[in-house]
Amino acid sequence: MERSSSVLVVGGTGYLGKRFVRASLTAGHRTYVLHRPEIGMDIDKAQMLLSHKKEGAILVHGSFGDHQSLVDAVRNADVVICPISGVHHRSHEILLQLKLVDAIKEAGNVKRFIPSEFGSDPLYNMQHCTNPAKVAFEDKMAVRKAIEEAGIPFTYILGNCTMGYFVSGLCQPGTLFPSRDSVCLHGDGNVKAIFVEEDDVAAYTIKCVDDPRTLNTTLVIRPPENTLSQREVVGMYIGKELKKTSISKEGLLASMRDQPLAIQVGMGHYDNVFHDGCLCLELENQHLEATELYPEIQYTRVQEYLKAFV
Amino acid sequence: MERSSSVLVVGGTGYLGKRFVRASLTAGHRTYVLHRPEIGMDIDKAQMLLSHKKEGAILVHGSFGDHQSLVDAVRNADVVICPISGVHHRSHEILLQLKLVDAIKEAGNVKRFIPSEFGSDPLYNMQHCTNPAKVAFEDKMAVRKAIEEAGIPFTYILGNCTMGYFVSGLCQPGTLFPSRDSVCLHGDGNVKAIFVEEDDVAAYTIKCVDDPRTLNTTLVIRPPENTLSQREVVGMYIGKELKKTSISKEGLLASMRDQPLAIQVGMGHYDNVFHDGCLCLELENQHLEATELYPEIQYTRVQEYLKAFV
Repeated sequence: MERSSSVLVVGGTGYLGKRFVRASLTAGHRTYVLHRPEIGMDIDKAQMLLSHKKEGAILVHGSFGDHQSLVDAVRNADVVICPISGVHHRSHEILLQLKLVDAIKEAGNVKRFIPSEFGSDPLYNMQHCTNPAKVAFEDKMAVRKAIEEAGIPFTYILGNCTMGYFVSGLCQPGTLFPSRDSVCLHGDGNVKAIFVEEDDVAAYTIKCVDDPRTLNTTLVIRPPENTLSQREVVGMYIGKELKKTSISKEGLLASMRDQPLAIQVGMGHYDNVFHDGCLCLELENQHLEATELYPEIQYTRVQEYLKAFV
Repeated sequence: MERSSSVLVVGGTGYLGKRFVRASLTAGHRTYVLHRPEIGMDIDKAQMLLSHKKEGAILVHGSFGDHQSLVDAVRNADVVICPISGVHHRSHEILLQLKLVDAIKEAGNVKRFIPSEFGSDPLYNMQHCTNPAKVAFEDKMAVRKAIEEAGIPFTYILGNCTMGYFVSGLCQPGTLFPSRDSVCLHGDGNVKAIFVEEDDVAAYTIKCVDDPRTLNTTLVIRPPENTLSQREVVGMYIGKELKKTSISKEGLLASMRDQPLAIQVGMGHYDNVFHDGCLCLELENQHLEATELYPEIQYTRVQEYLKAFV
């Protein structure tokens, strides 16, 4: 067996990032976490860095405002994973990664870069998604272009709908807890989506870091038992029938107007998934599927996930 | 042995609050956590609530904007602990507790209320502290007054300097990580302060919830081995001498001008502790000391805490 890789996680205090750090340590990789001075007085992030350190990670200083510090940081790593925030209502730092691409190019030692994706397919959605949600995909594509032009080996990972954001609210925007009484369906609620638990996104990602099959391609995480419509998700929630209302595509788009941009982007993703059915597409030939590649991972089922709320 | 108490934690997703929930569960108390709709799309808080639930806590809905919901929530509990944020640079919600006092008064069942204190003595500091830091203490005193006028049984807990905010930055405002090279002392660095690790604040607090000795009085946490000057803290950090500079009281106060209010308040607390020596006071007669009352708790020493950074 080859020695394990050195992995640098950039964004390791974030919602997904903390899971990548843990998954990398669990897999036995030498794991570095970028310690950005920008965290300032955010004591939760500071203590999360310390907790990563306690678990065995190595903190390395570096700032997106200091090119040389990024170069020095990536010199430690065979693999750079950057699950930096690209969710507008938290923060959208996707284009910061262009600086990371520059640093990786200069350092020259990185065998694989896994940029911040972990959602639906930006290549498809930058063409088909409504404005302003489209910007999220355009930014991810700008990073892909920079990576490929720099000749950096990569893997793009499509995690589809993370359960925390989509299953917790029964696929309704604006809530992270399900009501026990009622739910509003998107149209007839029958459009299929794909749900992946956040720790599973991290587990599949870490599996692929030194897998030659996933080099320079796109890995899609499509757990077959989590390919479900909103109506099916609702049906798994509790043993009683919820009162159902419905919102049309037009109604959803109308409700977005006058909302802050960050909210519009988020609701645009809901439209994209639950009205347009952007996750119903067949896999493209060159895409690999994670649950087929790594059947040993016991992924979390939606039904199991929903038990947390009961 | 009496049956254990029912404890409601208000602010259970916060920096201290999450530790109170865990400590209460560990002690075997029936533990309720207020689930406020105000958390909205804050997925970290939502998932922390779920993690409390998974550990055995019971989530109860309630909002400070809905008096009846607070009354219903506190009806579950013998003891209400409210470690809601009172740190200006995060949020300062101390006066929200006046609504909680109203609810506890109406419900009538609560045997003890432990409001958000956990710092230095507001009674002393509202008189001796500089503006604008003083507001933090005035607000805490306003809550004390409301509690006592409502005839609600209480315990006030003085946690002094929490290690995360004070030891992590070697007692320097504006940083949560120590430099390996240099430190700026407050004056000669010889004024004594008292440092308490955050989980220990929670452990002592939970110890006292059904201890009749601590009813209607003030519990001060003063771990004798953590009663140290800044110079002593710095000396415990690493095995080498740090380059030392110094800032005077006047210099600190001057550097506060033109800062946002939240920063001024925070720096005022540093002035209060490390220049004025507000923690050097003798215990007042009526105050109890936590490490004497509960010697079975093995509190964290500063020297031990600092190892996380090495």
